[in-house]
Amino acid sequence: MKYKIITAEEAASFLNNGDIVGFSGFTPAGSPSTVPDAISRRAEELHRNGKEFKIGMYTGASTGALLDGSLAKSKAVIFRTPYQSNGDMRNALNSGEVSYFDMHLSHLSQELRYGFMPKPKFAIIEACHITEDGDIVLTSGVGISPTICRLADHIIIELNEAFPQSFSGIHDIYEPNDPPYRQPIPLSNVNDRIGSPILKIDHSKVIGVVKANNPVNIEPFTAVDEVTSKIGDNVAKFLEGELKAGRIPKEFLPIQSGVGNIANAVLGALGSNENIPPFEMYTEVIQDSVIGLIRKGRVRFVSGCSLTVSKDVMPEIIKDIDFFKDRVILRPQEISNNPEIVRRLGLITINTALEADIFGNINSTHILGTKMMNGLGGSGDFTRNAYISIYTCPSVAKGGKISAIVPLVSHTDHSEHSVKILITEQGIADLRGKSPRQRAEEIINNCVHPDYRNLLRQYLNSAPQGHTPLNLNNCFEMHKALAETGDMHNAKF
Amino acid sequence: MKYKIITAEEAASFLNNGDIVGFSGFTPAGSPSTVPDAISRRAEELHRNGKEFKIGMYTGASTGALLDGSLAKSKAVIFRTPYQSNGDMRNALNSGEVSYFDMHLSHLSQELRYGFMPKPKFAIIEACHITEDGDIVLTSGVGISPTICRLADHIIIELNEAFPQSFSGIHDIYEPNDPPYRQPIPLSNVNDRIGSPILKIDHSKVIGVVKANNPVNIEPFTAVDEVTSKIGDNVAKFLEGELKAGRIPKEFLPIQSGVGNIANAVLGALGSNENIPPFEMYTEVIQDSVIGLIRKGRVRFVSGCSLTVSKDVMPEIIKDIDFFKDRVILRPQEISNNPEIVRRLGLITINTALEADIFGNINSTHILGTKMMNGLGGSGDFTRNAYISIYTCPSVAKGGKISAIVPLVSHTDHSEHSVKILITEQGIADLRGKSPRQRAEEIINNCVHPDYRNLLRQYLNSAPQGHTPLNLNNCFEMHKALAETGDMHNAKF
Repeated sequence: MKYKIITAEEAASFLNNGDIVGFSGFTPAGSPSTVPDAISRRAEELHRNGKEFKIGMYTGASTGALLDGSLAKSKAVIFRTPYQSNGDMRNALNSGEVSYFDMHLSHLSQELRYGFMPKPKFAIIEACHITEDGDIVLTSGVGISPTICRLADHIIIELNEAFPQSFSGIHDIYEPNDPPYRQPIPLSNVNDRIGSPILKIDHSKVIGVVKANNPVNIEPFTAVDEVTSKIGDNVAKFLEGELKAGRIPKEFLPIQSGVGNIANAVLGALGSNENIPPFEMYTEVIQDSVIGLIRKGRVRFVSGCSLTVSKDVMPEIIKDIDFFKDRVILRPQEISNNPEIVRRLGLITINTALEADIFGNINSTHILGTKMMNGLGGSGDFTRNAYISIYTCPSVAKGGKISAIVPLVSHTDHSEHSVKILITEQGIADLRGKSPRQRAEEIINNCVHPDYRNLLRQYLNSAPQGHTPLNLNNCFEMHKALAETGDMHNAKF
Repeated sequence: MKYKIITAEEAASFLNNGDIVGFSGFTPAGSPSTVPDAISRRAEELHRNGKEFKIGMYTGASTGALLDGSLAKSKAVIFRTPYQSNGDMRNALNSGEVSYFDMHLSHLSQELRYGFMPKPKFAIIEACHITEDGDIVLTSGVGISPTICRLADHIIIELNEAFPQSFSGIHDIYEPNDPPYRQPIPLSNVNDRIGSPILKIDHSKVIGVVKANNPVNIEPFTAVDEVTSKIGDNVAKFLEGELKAGRIPKEFLPIQSGVGNIANAVLGALGSNENIPPFEMYTEVIQDSVIGLIRKGRVRFVSGCSLTVSKDVMPEIIKDIDFFKDRVILRPQEISNNPEIVRRLGLITINTALEADIFGNINSTHILGTKMMNGLGGSGDFTRNAYISIYTCPSVAKGGKISAIVPLVSHTDHSEHSVKILITEQGIADLRGKSPRQRAEEIINNCVHPDYRNLLRQYLNSAPQGHTPLNLNNCFEMHKALAETGDMHNAKF
């Protein structure tokens, strides 16, 4: 099948003010950038001519400077879901310029199908190959591509020639039926294939193919430092202990790990711990560190939604693509993050908290309860349904002026009911089976930085009698001290 | 198989200080009471003699005066999970006398098997019949009985002769394997049977059978009043609209409904709405109102964890037991509340909030953030995984001195990410796809009592710029006004 080749500008010209557009990808991996760049330029030109032009944006997750950043800078976005992590988009949604709906990533596809949000008019999909039948081979991220291709009126394919056709075979595209006709998702092992390597589409929807050549442009994470390294060691120590105690089965269980420097340190520590057997991962984002562990034989198989590896690592994967296709599957986020699968496989989930409180509630999203950082992402999909859910964070930030552990989180993304273990560089708090007061003692003694322990004990002493020692009069004093004096130490209880 | 018949006192005498005991049932339905009464008396006697005697308690959910109440009054409990709703137990856990772990009901069985809490030494199980093989037919509640029978060292059967043997066949006992060997739960329809009507046990564990005769002793709920009736009508109106708009499929979807007067009003309204087709229910607790709707043909089938019907209704069910066995299944809470099934079946979930905030966060558990009311129960299992999740509450309480909707909930049980629709007697707030500020406007305009709308708008105007208009300086002013003056109207923003 031959589709019409069009320019990025021609593609962008199809879009009108108010249109809803779904983009492929998950993180920058798999996200188009050439067509979005043309959309930004179109927006700027229309704005210069006094015309309105803003679109609604659906993506798998965050994208990056070339999609979120570019469109936000051009003031071309009116609505954004489900996640972002770009500075310009962050400013736009915190200023109220963009209406942002932060949601569980596993929920997006079905809620689009259910009609809970408007159906996308356009799907703009990065592909590495178009089959003879006219179907699509995706690149390094799957996200919501199957759903937006099915729901959109029009599909624009951005054919990224920086990805070889040999990428074909790494994806497993499966979309469940909707209730009342949904059946069990037939996935019981991390490496089960349940769908098609090809994204099959309605060919009549394709309005054109834009040729592009966009190699991966992601910088590697910074090296592990002393604090993140201690956190990683504490996670490994904890899991080793659980394994010894028989609370994790001797076969071990698949790991889900969040993104970033702490996640890298955790994976490093798990990878080098001889008492932890080679393991599998069932996760969202596959980072550089996972690729290293696959090569070392420490990670036996990884299922994810995207290969978000750096520009140093992607060429190595492409070179050894047959090796990696035996060890990596990329799935839609509806499957990679699916509660049914997370609970069935019994994942050990390890995610990073922005802020935790002494009861075990977690804030993943908001600074001082008000400013959105990135979003919830998949953390809730995994945490709630985990075999055992772990949150990690450094005990302090900004040179000690911020304690990551406070009397009450300023925003609750994961409640005390979902969080089993809290780990900082100071130690491990095991919250299982404990009352709020017992959890507070466990967290203060084991996880809080020594500088803040007395302060939090003073808070606890100020709280009234009751199941949860919450004092509504002063539970945000540490936040207020930070806002007013720049240092949480100045809180008084 | 003949087990030894023992007295309740003999049964109680096996228990020692510090023992962990699992009880059958879910709500008072299916919970033993004769043996617990003897345990209470044993505790009191030991205490009189200066001896320590406290047990740890696992149950399915709440129990009632004869189990939670009796043991709490006798100061015979040191640890309690996962849920309670009894005044004496509530006082004991709020005073710190009992350590209470509030948790998602679907999580308990697996976390006991995983070893996250101590295994029970005793399982005390109410039965209506013991088979010739020595296995158990449960009564009106299943709860965690299969798991505690498997994990406990010893089983005591309380044979309740008030339940006829003809109850046999209503239960469907299924316990999943644990990871890494768990398979899909093979349940795709509300009325699928996937297990056994009999609870099979290790016969060598049975230390005796205590004969009892405890008819159902539950009072009917109070009649629907004007406010709950309006809430019910609003729920029916909302679902009717979704059906018309095609956002709920024309076949309709199974209903999950919480417990209590509002739930009764909601079911009444759904039952009498001609635009809503006869429907199925997949829920926790089956109340009187459901039985009425089954008789009217409005509820086609109901799957639950317990038949918690009143003393007026149970005799009617027993009389027509064959009719009801074709229309009712009782399952373990690990299945009735299972996220995998909730999402697969696409439940419409309707639960009651103690308190909601203008962003859509829900407090199901705590009064003024401190005092535990009952517990989380199954609300989180259902809400998070629903097709569409609805929370209901009257907009005001205590003659208008309390607004159920506040700037920030004093305890977050269900985050904004899980809650799609909020309904009061004032109206319906549709939170789907909306930013926090848009949700605040929707909730204030549609759900808040007119008396409190200006107050909440003043709060909103006081909040700083940012994605979530949260003002850490005054977000609990309404709670403080209530605590200090007895009236939330006195809050100043």
